[in-house]
Amino acid sequence: MKLATFNPPGTSETLAGEVRGDRIVTFTTGKTVLELLADGDRTPATGTEHALADVTLLEPILRPPAIFCIGRNYAAHIAELGNERPEKPIVFLKLPLSSAPPSGPVVTPSASHALDYEAELVLVIGADHEIAGYAVADDVSARDLQRSEKQWTRAKGFDTSCPWGPWITTADELTDPIGLRITTHVNGELRQDGNTRDLIFNPRELVDFIGEACTLEPGAIVLTGTPSGVGEAFDPPRYLQPGDTVRCEIEQLGAIEHRIA
Amino acid sequence: MKLATFNPPGTSETLAGEVRGDRIVTFTTGKTVLELLADGDRTPATGTEHALADVTLLEPILRPPAIFCIGRNYAAHIAELGNERPEKPIVFLKLPLSSAPPSGPVVTPSASHALDYEAELVLVIGADHEIAGYAVADDVSARDLQRSEKQWTRAKGFDTSCPWGPWITTADELTDPIGLRITTHVNGELRQDGNTRDLIFNPRELVDFIGEACTLEPGAIVLTGTPSGVGEAFDPPRYLQPGDTVRCEIEQLGAIEHRIA
Repeated sequence: MKLATFNPPGTSETLAGEVRGDRIVTFTTGKTVLELLADGDRTPATGTEHALADVTLLEPILRPPAIFCIGRNYAAHIAELGNERPEKPIVFLKLPLSSAPPSGPVVTPSASHALDYEAELVLVIGADHEIAGYAVADDVSARDLQRSEKQWTRAKGFDTSCPWGPWITTADELTDPIGLRITTHVNGELRQDGNTRDLIFNPRELVDFIGEACTLEPGAIVLTGTPSGVGEAFDPPRYLQPGDTVRCEIEQLGAIEHRIA
Repeated sequence: MKLATFNPPGTSETLAGEVRGDRIVTFTTGKTVLELLADGDRTPATGTEHALADVTLLEPILRPPAIFCIGRNYAAHIAELGNERPEKPIVFLKLPLSSAPPSGPVVTPSASHALDYEAELVLVIGADHEIAGYAVADDVSARDLQRSEKQWTRAKGFDTSCPWGPWITTADELTDPIGLRITTHVNGELRQDGNTRDLIFNPRELVDFIGEACTLEPGAIVLTGTPSGVGEAFDPPRYLQPGDTVRCEIEQLGAIEHRIA
């Protein structure tokens, strides 16, 4: 099942819906996507139906209780930036206001002049640390801040730095998130082309590692790291510029596409 | 004005109140402390009055929208751990579930065997990045995780790692938070004895620095760093043990006291 949060055509009403092909069907229970994930209710939606192209997709969970992110979790990405393979996962956080709709926009913060893309597989947490679903995110990163600031709060947690979606594919529909192609295009040019089979720490290991210290509440999300091909690794680096369009896609999970403002 | 969130005697009802000496007076407007801070309403409370000793004080804001923390912001603390003075503030985050009542308890996470205390001045944000008030926190830190993990999410963000309160002293009552004695006692023994005049980056500088990338929502809090005297700096280190009692106090802002579980 594919769960989305959306505005129907011509209104700002926020609804939960089930995506079926190029249609979206409204849930009539009044439950949010977060509530559906947490209580495990997978009853098919039966309400009003729209063409997917006619609605505005929002973040599947509007304000995740936490956004955990993993650094350096693909060997080829570690190599391209000259970093060392970590002995245990590198866990950092984005902020509630980092969460942005799948269509963005991502707003360049005044503190940075070097934004970069990072396509990532997202784990969405249900009850009891269960991985209830999967999605796509761009872990937009301010490389200048990341280089000069020991902790990555501003570099990775600036407002709108986490467009994600386009919907959540539940774990009963996608039983194994390993072996999926993951790509990023910038203005139509292929930049990242990896596969989730190359994750160093797998989804269950990541959730268990975080869970040794931090409870993951239902609706928390975990960005699992990015493959090689980031703008920082080019010589000279190819940072994102205002007006650029970034498209991140994962096989079976869909694509998000946002503009840089 | 001193704003507190509390349970009256014998109930789990959560109320907002004004602390006056050893009494607490309930607000009858139904507004939470967060709402009072954000809208600037400083009308004195007029409701039911209790002895402060008879109520249970909770975190002044139950789930702050963000908990920003600053590392290495007192020269003597930088020296005691052999670190370098940072050129700009080191900003890291705790999680919503890090927030704990002023009386704790702080629960040792399974991943750590080396908890440490850090008494800190807290800035509480109102509307438009205004510093609306001040409080006291213990930035409880898992030193073993902090040493071995590049980003401090687990080391600093584990559940209950941020007991704070005991209330918020509004900025109209305390016009200058600089020059206040800040202390920590462990089981009655004085360990930290500093003064907020020794802050390297001052409150306004910290909020403006964060604000270059991240909007600080009303109710967000900023822990401003700790003075010297932490357990890690003793030889051998004196980490906290289950059963220990930690008391952090700042002149004019009150004291919090929590147990380690």
